[in-house]
Amino acid sequence: MIVVMNPRSSREQVDHVVRLLEGMGVNSHVIEGASQAVVELLKLDGEFDRRRLEKAPMVDKVLDNPVPILAANRSAGDGAQRPREIPLGPRAVIGGKKLGIIAGPCSVESESGLLETAAAVADAGAVALRGGAFKPRTSPYSCQGHEERGLEMLARAREETGLPIVTEVMCCKHVDCVQPYADVLQVGSRNMHATPLLKAVGEQEKPVLLKRGWSATLEEFLLAAEYIMHAGNRNVILCERGIRTHEEYVRNTLALAVVPEVKRVSNLPIIVDPSHGTGKAHLVTPMCNAAVACGADGLLVEVHTAPDRAWSDGAQALDPDQFRSLIKGLKPFADACQREL
Amino acid sequence: MIVVMNPRSSREQVDHVVRLLEGMGVNSHVIEGASQAVVELLKLDGEFDRRRLEKAPMVDKVLDNPVPILAANRSAGDGAQRPREIPLGPRAVIGGKKLGIIAGPCSVESESGLLETAAAVADAGAVALRGGAFKPRTSPYSCQGHEERGLEMLARAREETGLPIVTEVMCCKHVDCVQPYADVLQVGSRNMHATPLLKAVGEQEKPVLLKRGWSATLEEFLLAAEYIMHAGNRNVILCERGIRTHEEYVRNTLALAVVPEVKRVSNLPIIVDPSHGTGKAHLVTPMCNAAVACGADGLLVEVHTAPDRAWSDGAQALDPDQFRSLIKGLKPFADACQREL
Amino acid sequence: MIVVMNPRSSREQVDHVVRLLEGMGVNSHVIEGASQAVVELLKLDGEFDRRRLEKAPMVDKVLDNPVPILAANRSAGDGAQRPREIPLGPRAVIGGKKLGIIAGPCSVESESGLLETAAAVADAGAVALRGGAFKPRTSPYSCQGHEERGLEMLARAREETGLPIVTEVMCCKHVDCVQPYADVLQVGSRNMHATPLLKAVGEQEKPVLLKRGWSATLEEFLLAAEYIMHAGNRNVILCERGIRTHEEYVRNTLALAVVPEVKRVSNLPIIVDPSHGTGKAHLVTPMCNAAVACGADGLLVEVHTAPDRAWSDGAQALDPDQFRSLIKGLKPFADACQREL
Amino acid sequence: MIVVMNPRSSREQVDHVVRLLEGMGVNSHVIEGASQAVVELLKLDGEFDRRRLEKAPMVDKVLDNPVPILAANRSAGDGAQRPREIPLGPRAVIGGKKLGIIAGPCSVESESGLLETAAAVADAGAVALRGGAFKPRTSPYSCQGHEERGLEMLARAREETGLPIVTEVMCCKHVDCVQPYADVLQVGSRNMHATPLLKAVGEQEKPVLLKRGWSATLEEFLLAAEYIMHAGNRNVILCERGIRTHEEYVRNTLALAVVPEVKRVSNLPIIVDPSHGTGKAHLVTPMCNAAVACGADGLLVEVHTAPDRAWSDGAQALDPDQFRSLIKGLKPFADACQREL
Repeated sequence: MIVVMNPRSSREQVDHVVRLLEGMGVNSHVIEGASQAVVELLKLDGEFDRRRLEKAPMVDKVLDNPVPILAANRSAGDGAQRPREIPLGPRAVIGGKKLGIIAGPCSVESESGLLETAAAVADAGAVALRGGAFKPRTSPYSCQGHEERGLEMLARAREETGLPIVTEVMCCKHVDCVQPYADVLQVGSRNMHATPLLKAVGEQEKPVLLKRGWSATLEEFLLAAEYIMHAGNRNVILCERGIRTHEEYVRNTLALAVVPEVKRVSNLPIIVDPSHGTGKAHLVTPMCNAAVACGADGLLVEVHTAPDRAWSDGAQALDPDQFRSLIKGLKPFADACQREL
Repeated sequence: MIVVMNPRSSREQVDHVVRLLEGMGVNSHVIEGASQAVVELLKLDGEFDRRRLEKAPMVDKVLDNPVPILAANRSAGDGAQRPREIPLGPRAVIGGKKLGIIAGPCSVESESGLLETAAAVADAGAVALRGGAFKPRTSPYSCQGHEERGLEMLARAREETGLPIVTEVMCCKHVDCVQPYADVLQVGSRNMHATPLLKAVGEQEKPVLLKRGWSATLEEFLLAAEYIMHAGNRNVILCERGIRTHEEYVRNTLALAVVPEVKRVSNLPIIVDPSHGTGKAHLVTPMCNAAVACGADGLLVEVHTAPDRAWSDGAQALDPDQFRSLIKGLKPFADACQREL
Repeated sequence: MIVVMNPRSSREQVDHVVRLLEGMGVNSHVIEGASQAVVELLKLDGEFDRRRLEKAPMVDKVLDNPVPILAANRSAGDGAQRPREIPLGPRAVIGGKKLGIIAGPCSVESESGLLETAAAVADAGAVALRGGAFKPRTSPYSCQGHEERGLEMLARAREETGLPIVTEVMCCKHVDCVQPYADVLQVGSRNMHATPLLKAVGEQEKPVLLKRGWSATLEEFLLAAEYIMHAGNRNVILCERGIRTHEEYVRNTLALAVVPEVKRVSNLPIIVDPSHGTGKAHLVTPMCNAAVACGADGLLVEVHTAPDRAWSDGAQALDPDQFRSLIKGLKPFADACQREL
Repeated sequence: MIVVMNPRSSREQVDHVVRLLEGMGVNSHVIEGASQAVVELLKLDGEFDRRRLEKAPMVDKVLDNPVPILAANRSAGDGAQRPREIPLGPRAVIGGKKLGIIAGPCSVESESGLLETAAAVADAGAVALRGGAFKPRTSPYSCQGHEERGLEMLARAREETGLPIVTEVMCCKHVDCVQPYADVLQVGSRNMHATPLLKAVGEQEKPVLLKRGWSATLEEFLLAAEYIMHAGNRNVILCERGIRTHEEYVRNTLALAVVPEVKRVSNLPIIVDPSHGTGKAHLVTPMCNAAVACGADGLLVEVHTAPDRAWSDGAQALDPDQFRSLIKGLKPFADACQREL
C-alpha cells in the first residue's frame, strides 16, 4: 500500500504521515521523487485507520496495490489523456503527427562511414541518427566500441547533417561522459532493469530512449520508465525491440501488440526496432509497415553502408538504398494512419 | 539423409533403391506419400556411394539433411515460386489479390445467434463463416460444444448467407462426421502436432486451415503442413494465432514476423488470428491492420452478437458493429498493400 | 460456476437442477462424467439464488471458479490425502515406497535389439519396459514406427522378461489396436491437449501414463489428467519431461519443481523423464538423482543397445552399462528419501 | 575470429600481430585482458594467411569462432580440469568437498532481526550470511534498501557470528562503497548482462557471486563470468536462480540441468538459489535436495525470522526452524554425493 503525497507537500507534511502511521503501528518508508514523495507502508499488522490517513494534509491518494504507473498513466487526469510529445533535439519530436524515423549503424566504426550513412539517412527522411559508441557485447572478446572517440564522430555527423544524436549509455559512470554529446540517451535492452542507471538518466535533462528488456513484462517496462520519470525526467520514449521466445528463425520475437497497449494505458510515445526485433534484414521492411499500421510513433532502423562488413549485427542492417525504399514504401501506410513522414 | 523418388517411379524402382542401399550396408525406410515416395536412410555406418544412388532410375534428389519442406517449398522449381491460391468453397479463394476475412463466433451456441452473426459478417464483407461445433477446452468441466447439432446449424447458416463454413476437427474419428458439413476443415493449435489427424485431413479433399501450435517453431509449423500435403491434400492455409511467451497483458504473443517469413520460404497462404493472438478485443483492430501491412493473406476474427454472454472467449470477440468498423478501417491498409477487400 | 452432483444422483435429479437454473434465468450445460455429473452455468445475467441451488437434492457443491481438479484433488476429503498407487501390470505399482523405473528404447526397431534391451533393463532393476511402436515425428520424412508389428515385438519382450509394457497411443483410432498389447498406455507430450484422446484412454481400463505438454502450465497438465479420470479411468501416472524455453544447451528444460507441487495438490504419482527432459545422455544420471531427491515416484529412461545407431533420439539414450551404473548410483539417493529401488 | 596472445607477450608483439593483419587487408581490434590480450579480426575480406599468423611471436591460438570461454574452460589444459575452490572470507570455500550454504534475509531490515537471523543460520550450519542493502526493485515505489546503513548492520553481524558477508552491488558507482564491507560481491540476475559492472567487480579482489540472468542462455552466463575473469578476478561463483518461462505456479523455473552442464564445461563452482528459483517456501526444501543431488556446490537460501513480515520476497523465505530442518534433511543427500555439510 502506498500513500501518494501532493507535489506541493513539505517535508514536514510527509513526516507527519509517517508519524501518523507509526501511531497506528505501521512501519513505512519514504520514497522521494523529483516532484512528489510517496510513502510505502511496510507490511501491515492488522487494521489501520485508512480514512484518517486520507484526510491528512497534502495526501493525494492512498493506493491499495502497488500501482504500476503514476507518472505516465493516461487515467491520471488533468491532461494525462493527451499523448506526450518528446523532443529529439531542437527541431524534431517523437509522439506527434509526424512519424519519427531514427536510423544509423549499430556501432560507430570509421568517421567516413558514419558521415556517409548519416548523410544518406538524413536525405531519406530520418529525423535522428543512432550509433553506438559504447557497445554492450555478450563476449569480452567482441569489440566494445570506440567509446569517447565514437562520441566525437557522432558529434561531427550532427554538425554535418543537423540530425540529433541517439546513443547508448551503459552505466551510471558513463552518463557524465555521454550526456554532453548526445541529444537523446538510449538505455539498452540489457539495462532496462538497471535501476541505478534509470535514476541517473532521470536526473539529467536530455530525453531518454528506453528499450524494452528482452524478457520484460509490460508492467516492468512501464515501471522502468516510471523510475526515470520519478527521478525528474519526464521525456521518455519507449522502444519495443523484440522479446526472447522459443522461435528459431528470428533473433527475437517482435511483440507488436505492446504498441496499442502502451498507448492505451500510458501517454508515452513508443517506437519499434525491427532490426533487433527480427535480426534479419529481409524482415525489416514488412515489420516496419506493420509497426506503423498498429500505431507506432516511429521506428529505429539499423543502416550501414556495407552491412556485410559491419562490426556488429550486419545481418540485420539495411544499406542506404534499401532504407530509401523502406521509407518510400512506408508512405501509404503512414497515410492510412493519418500520420506524416 | 533422404532420397526423394520421382512422382512417376514404380514400386520396383523404389525397392531397387532400398536394395542398392542394403548392398552398401545402409538400412532404410520407405515413406509413401500420395504422389511421391521418400526413402529415409537410417543411421549410416561409415561411407556409402552417393553418386551411385543419385544415378539410380527415378531418383530425383539425395538430400543431406532432413529437409523441412518439399511440397510447399518456393525454391522447388516449376511454378513453385508462385503463391498458391486455396479455394474457400466454390466462390472465394485465400492467397489471391483479395484479402480473405473469415469471421464468426468461437463456439456455435444458439441457431438464432449464429444466423444473426453470419448475416452481419457476410454483410460487412467476410468471405467465410467460422464457428466451433467440437470445442477443445482445457477443463472437462467447460462446455465441449454442440457437436453434430452445431454442424447442422453451421450448414443452415451457409444456406442463408452463402458463406462457406470453416470449422474445427479435433480427432481422426471426427473427420468423417465433420467433413461433409464443412467447406474448410480447421486443425487447431492444440492439434498441430497430432500427426494422425494431419494425415487424416490430408487424405480427404476439403481445404485445411492449419493453426500454428502455440509453442511450435516455424519449422514444425511448415512440417505439419507437409504432413497434410504429403498425404495428398495440397490445399493448406496456414494461420498464425499467437505463441506462448512470458508476456502477461495478452493471452498470447502475436508473432507477426512469421507472415513475411512463411511467404519467403513457402508458396502457401497465411492468415492471422488476432482474436486468439491477443485475447483482448481492444487489440484486435490494430493487430489486424498490422497483419495486413506485413503481408497476411487474410484474417480470422471472432465475432459474437453479445461478446459478454459468449460461452467461450468473449473477452476477445468483437460485436457486429465493431467488426464493421474494423473492415472499414482496414480498407486504406489493404490499398497500401495493393490488396482488395 | 459449476454445480457438482453427487455420484449417486439420478438423471432426474440432474435435470431438476437444470430446470431450477432455468427458472432463475440461467442457462446451463450438463457434463456427464463416468461417476458424476457436473452442471456448468453458462454466463450469468445478474443475480441468482445460490442457496436454493445448494439445497437441491444430490447437489454436492457449488463452485465459484472453474476448479482445476476434482478427481485428483488432495483436499477433496475421504482418503483423498493418501497418494494413489497405480498398477503397472500385475506385479508392480507406481506411487508406493518402491521407485518405479521404466526403461527401454525410444522406438522399437529390431526384435533382437528390443529383447536384448529388455533383458538388460529387467536385470538392472527396471519395473517396466517402454518402447514406441507408433512414433510421433516432426517430419513426415522421418520413420513413423513399426506400428502393429512393433506392438507384437513388445508383447514378445514381455513374455521373455515378465516386464509390463508402456507404449504410446497417438490417436483415438489407435486405442483399440494398441490397448490389448499394452499394460500402460502412454499419452505423449504432443497429445496432452488432445481431449478426444484423453477421453478415449479414460474409457478403457489400462492405466495411463500422461506426459506433460512441453508448453503446458501445471493447471493444464492436471486438467488433462482430470479428463481421463472424469471419463472413468482413475489410474493416471503423470510424467514431467521438460518444457520448451529459451535454453540452448538442452533439448528441453526439466522443470523439477513440478514434482513436489504435484504431490502437494494432487494424489497422483509423478515420474520424471530426464532423457527427453535434457536430450543429452551425459545429463540423464545427475537429473535422475535430482528427480528422486525432490520426490519423484519413478523415472522414464531411454536405453538402447547402441545409442549411436538408434533410429530416433540416440543422443539422449543410455547404453545398458550406463543404465546399470545409473541404477547403482541411484541407490543412496533412494535411501536418503526412504524409498526402495 | 580471434587471436589469443600469450600472457607473456609484450605490447610490441601485440602491435606486430595487428600490423601483420593490416598487411593482409584485415582490420582488427585489441582487447586487453588483465593477463592476456586478444586480437579480434573485424570482418574479413576474402582470404588471409592464417599459418603466418599462427607462427607470429607469442601468438597462442587462432580461434575460428568466438569461443565462449577461455578463462574457465575445463579443456584449456594445465590444471584447468580441476574444479576451482573459491574463498568465502578467510575460513570457508565454495567448490570443495564441503557444501557451501549461504543464508540470510532478502533485504537487511532491522539490526536486531538481522543479528537474530545471522545467529540462527550460523548455528544451523551456514558458511556465509547473505543480505541485501542495495535492493533492485521493479517499482520505484518499493523500498530500495537501507544502502550504507544496511552494510554497517551486515558488518556488525559478521563481527558477532564470524560469518562472511555476501551482498549485492548493483552499479559500478557502488563498488567502492560496498566492497570494503563485503566478503563476496553479488551481481544479481538483473545485472548479469551489465558489462561495465562485470568489469568493475573483475578489477577488485573480493570473490564474486554471479547470478544467472533470468533469460540468459548458458553461453551468456559463462561469458558474463568471462568478463569478470578477463578483467583480472578469477574468483567467480556461479548461481542458478531460475529462468523466466510460461510456468504459472512458480515465480521462476529452476533449471537444474545447468548444474551438471556447468561442471562439465567449466571449472567454476555453481550454487543454486531455490528461494528465487521457485518463489515458494514450500518448494525450497525439495529443490535444495535436488540441487545437491545433481552436483551443486552449495545453496543460497532466504531465511527471515518472520517471513510474513519481510519487506520483500517473504513468500519464499524460510523461518529459522524450517532452515534447521532443511539442513538436517539435506545430510543424507550430501552423504549420497560424498559431500560434507
